[in-house]
Amino acid sequence: MSRSNVARLLVSCRDREGIIATLSEALRDVGANIITSDQFSSDPYGGSFSLRMEFYVPDDAEERLTKLEARLNEIASVLHLDHHLIDARRRKRVALFVSRYDHCLLDLLWRWRSGQLDMDVVAVVSNHPDLQEEVARFGVPYHHIPITPETKAEAEQAELDLLSGEVELIVMARYMQVLSEDFLSRIGCPVINIHHSFLPAFAGAGPYQRAHSRGVKLIGATAHYATQDLDEGPIIEQDVIRVTHRESAAELERIGADVERLVLARAVGWHLQDRILLQGHRTIVF
Amino acid sequence: MSRSNVARLLVSCRDREGIIATLSEALRDVGANIITSDQFSSDPYGGSFSLRMEFYVPDDAEERLTKLEARLNEIASVLHLDHHLIDARRRKRVALFVSRYDHCLLDLLWRWRSGQLDMDVVAVVSNHPDLQEEVARFGVPYHHIPITPETKAEAEQAELDLLSGEVELIVMARYMQVLSEDFLSRIGCPVINIHHSFLPAFAGAGPYQRAHSRGVKLIGATAHYATQDLDEGPIIEQDVIRVTHRESAAELERIGADVERLVLARAVGWHLQDRILLQGHRTIVF
Amino acid sequence: MSRSNVARLLVSCRDREGIIATLSEALRDVGANIITSDQFSSDPYGGSFSLRMEFYVPDDAEERLTKLEARLNEIASVLHLDHHLIDARRRKRVALFVSRYDHCLLDLLWRWRSGQLDMDVVAVVSNHPDLQEEVARFGVPYHHIPITPETKAEAEQAELDLLSGEVELIVMARYMQVLSEDFLSRIGCPVINIHHSFLPAFAGAGPYQRAHSRGVKLIGATAHYATQDLDEGPIIEQDVIRVTHRESAAELERIGADVERLVLARAVGWHLQDRILLQGHRTIVF
Amino acid sequence: MSRSNVARLLVSCRDREGIIATLSEALRDVGANIITSDQFSSDPYGGSFSLRMEFYVPDDAEERLTKLEARLNEIASVLHLDHHLIDARRRKRVALFVSRYDHCLLDLLWRWRSGQLDMDVVAVVSNHPDLQEEVARFGVPYHHIPITPETKAEAEQAELDLLSGEVELIVMARYMQVLSEDFLSRIGCPVINIHHSFLPAFAGAGPYQRAHSRGVKLIGATAHYATQDLDEGPIIEQDVIRVTHRESAAELERIGADVERLVLARAVGWHLQDRILLQGHRTIVF
Repeated sequence: MSRSNVARLLVSCRDREGIIATLSEALRDVGANIITSDQFSSDPYGGSFSLRMEFYVPDDAEERLTKLEARLNEIASVLHLDHHLIDARRRKRVALFVSRYDHCLLDLLWRWRSGQLDMDVVAVVSNHPDLQEEVARFGVPYHHIPITPETKAEAEQAELDLLSGEVELIVMARYMQVLSEDFLSRIGCPVINIHHSFLPAFAGAGPYQRAHSRGVKLIGATAHYATQDLDEGPIIEQDVIRVTHRESAAELERIGADVERLVLARAVGWHLQDRILLQGHRTIVF
Repeated sequence: MSRSNVARLLVSCRDREGIIATLSEALRDVGANIITSDQFSSDPYGGSFSLRMEFYVPDDAEERLTKLEARLNEIASVLHLDHHLIDARRRKRVALFVSRYDHCLLDLLWRWRSGQLDMDVVAVVSNHPDLQEEVARFGVPYHHIPITPETKAEAEQAELDLLSGEVELIVMARYMQVLSEDFLSRIGCPVINIHHSFLPAFAGAGPYQRAHSRGVKLIGATAHYATQDLDEGPIIEQDVIRVTHRESAAELERIGADVERLVLARAVGWHLQDRILLQGHRTIVF
Repeated sequence: MSRSNVARLLVSCRDREGIIATLSEALRDVGANIITSDQFSSDPYGGSFSLRMEFYVPDDAEERLTKLEARLNEIASVLHLDHHLIDARRRKRVALFVSRYDHCLLDLLWRWRSGQLDMDVVAVVSNHPDLQEEVARFGVPYHHIPITPETKAEAEQAELDLLSGEVELIVMARYMQVLSEDFLSRIGCPVINIHHSFLPAFAGAGPYQRAHSRGVKLIGATAHYATQDLDEGPIIEQDVIRVTHRESAAELERIGADVERLVLARAVGWHLQDRILLQGHRTIVF
Repeated sequence: MSRSNVARLLVSCRDREGIIATLSEALRDVGANIITSDQFSSDPYGGSFSLRMEFYVPDDAEERLTKLEARLNEIASVLHLDHHLIDARRRKRVALFVSRYDHCLLDLLWRWRSGQLDMDVVAVVSNHPDLQEEVARFGVPYHHIPITPETKAEAEQAELDLLSGEVELIVMARYMQVLSEDFLSRIGCPVINIHHSFLPAFAGAGPYQRAHSRGVKLIGATAHYATQDLDEGPIIEQDVIRVTHRESAAELERIGADVERLVLARAVGWHLQDRILLQGHRTIVF
């Protein structure tokens, strides 16, 4: 089955009777065959309803999807639902932000090159020059935009000039700068961050050192959408690895790096497949 | 939301366009509101299609479900689909089989008593008398049916006399006897077994001893439907726990017991909620 | 190998050369054969050193251990080390505290009865009468000591009168009361608590509700020694289980209960085998 | 603490009294300070005994280690023990074998470059030319030695000519050829292989396809020493990842790749630190 014939429908609304019937009729009427259908309701009477359908369009995809979009607009105005119809033929354009730690960045680039992550990496942005050569090997432009407390506004403006309207996702692959509220509101696309702890434990700086002092027996990582509240955005994925008293804080960091890159890669992959919806502050991962 | 208003629809058929639309229309037309809908297709054109819908009926449940059943029968004859409409108000009647190890049995009984497993335990059957008193405390009849190689046919006949038509599920909670092909075909209900290894590794007897000799680093357990091919039935759930060279075979057995009871409890819980469908030899767990 | 011949030596001191040599000579000289030897040093020059040796004494255990104790006292005064020589023939006397949730308590009692936990359970103490009958079946005295904010001091005095000098370990098996600083200092034995979250995340009350609101993807439990700083005592063991957006807060609680009882059982088992030493606020688990 | 002052002692023998005392005396007498000491005995009277000590030598390391070696030889002849004294200042020389899948190879090279794996990679050997350019970037010689059934003996001879006496470890990083018994006996160094299943399940070819058909719920990988019995060598490390009915065999392979590289990296890291000893067919991992 070729990717060129697959599309996706995301829907959010208040739950009520008949939504699935109405939407699946609309899909049937344009000849679509549902591959996967997932829905979740926080409460079947009056809760928040989220739905994701992935479907196959046999031929004339362009025309059928146009017809479907029109039909969905009619339904949406009646049922008061938010919907997104996504043509899976188009790859999302993504920028990767990084500082000096290379493990998350290289892991994403390697997965991208090997076809695991269905995206176009249009830029790597870094506040350090260190990884320029490494990134060049992947044929991706590297933008070195240094940041100091004094030049932060200016640097973020440079990032906005570069990326605004050009990317549909930013991934902070161990980018050790806090994106300002202003940047997040103006960039106009989701931002995924990897935090090197099992949030909400050890939010903020130095999580491995603090985890070591506290003597935890599991080391974790958390991928989440970045919001203006640092480390408080909706959690996408988390995982942990077992440690003991033997590991120093430096070793926890090394071990944690393996969790970080796995967790971030999963989160990015799910986002690219439009599998993540939001219900308030919680993610629904279909 | 009261359990008394929930019903479930399970469907298996060859995949084709419009199944979800047709079924969700049928549900809407009787006023049902879908709580959960899961479907899986091994291939969107011509593969095996499995669907589970859980839905809420606001009132007059009896009447609405009767109407729905009639409608489903019509649909089924046109679309050639197997369907089961299940009224979740009825608890499944279950028999638990056990030999001497008590951990899986007590765990199931304890979960049942605390309301985690929505079933009626109608009998405990054992080839040993050891656990009689323990079971009595849960108010469940204990049937001691000894088995020797010579009396096996006779013993199984006694079990059939006791249970045939009376139970909808048998759980082998470390029952150390192989149920004969004849028994399995005549009992007429599914049988869930817990095997004390990560199948297909260490199928057969003495898995912990063999795992120790082989020096594995993880100990597992597998819940599966019992079929005439010993330890070859469809796998429902598996899990593992990390071990080291330090543990003796006896300690592996003790550690493995914790995995066994968790894995079996999950499998039984899913079965009771009608979350397990079969596609050939593989389970679909929604 | 009979338990009656096994003893253990625990040592804590500043690290320096020759400690292991000196101690293993002392053991050899009384004819002991080391079964397991674990040591950990936070820094080989001048850090904190912790050691646990388990050894076998062929015969005349009493006499040999007396001789060893004398020798150890000499060594201790020269090398400035803290040491504990423990005769594994003696079972530790333990009291279990519980409120209304039975899963941790019953799990400990079941493991104790089946020989997995090498202890004497001398009392169950509860601020509720609910589990009296259940505990009676295990032949353990049940002490119902109600607590209100007004009667707390009095209730704790009753507990001290009952247990002080009688027990060597208290296990809070979901005992929903905070033990006062006064109680902890006067009871004179370690107290193990199970917290129903992955500490330091969700310290305090209502962790499952808060975990649900925060949308975490893993639910955890933490066994720790109780100290005057609530939920801040040294962590002994932690584990997690994967959850999704589907689970309600009530379901997280049910799932979490399985992690709680496993984590608490491991922590208690390790304590009973004298496998846990403290280095400041961190546990060393050998 | 500088690596230049660390050494390791590995000992294997029949268990008896006083081994630890004798060896730790020998270390103390040359001024060594033990950093870590691990021992394991399959049975304290007459079982197999394995010990690993890591220790720090303050200065004049060369001289002290020479003295220690002489002393150990004396002890060994009396106590009939096998011992290896390893100067941790010397990096092990390693060859990596690979076919076409790059994930394990790149992961090892990346960890090596970032200082996580303390080795000298002296060669990459492959039966395919595909990864030549990629490996060149790490500054490691790439030897393309094609193999057909007809040229196998010849190709292995070329590998022996290249590596015999030059390397102390070979890592098969998804090298899809079976090394002959003759090669294994002549190469004279350990060989670590990664098998893409949870052995002994799915030994042999096509494990992901077979795991998919069997409907397993966990996908695993196993790092083991290669022996003449294919997939039967001593297991070093295993891990698994949870999968569902949704994943195709191709997706299981992709998911499994993440487990493979983690498991192989751990096994190689432990070997380089001399943490793996053999007791018959089982590994002791300290």
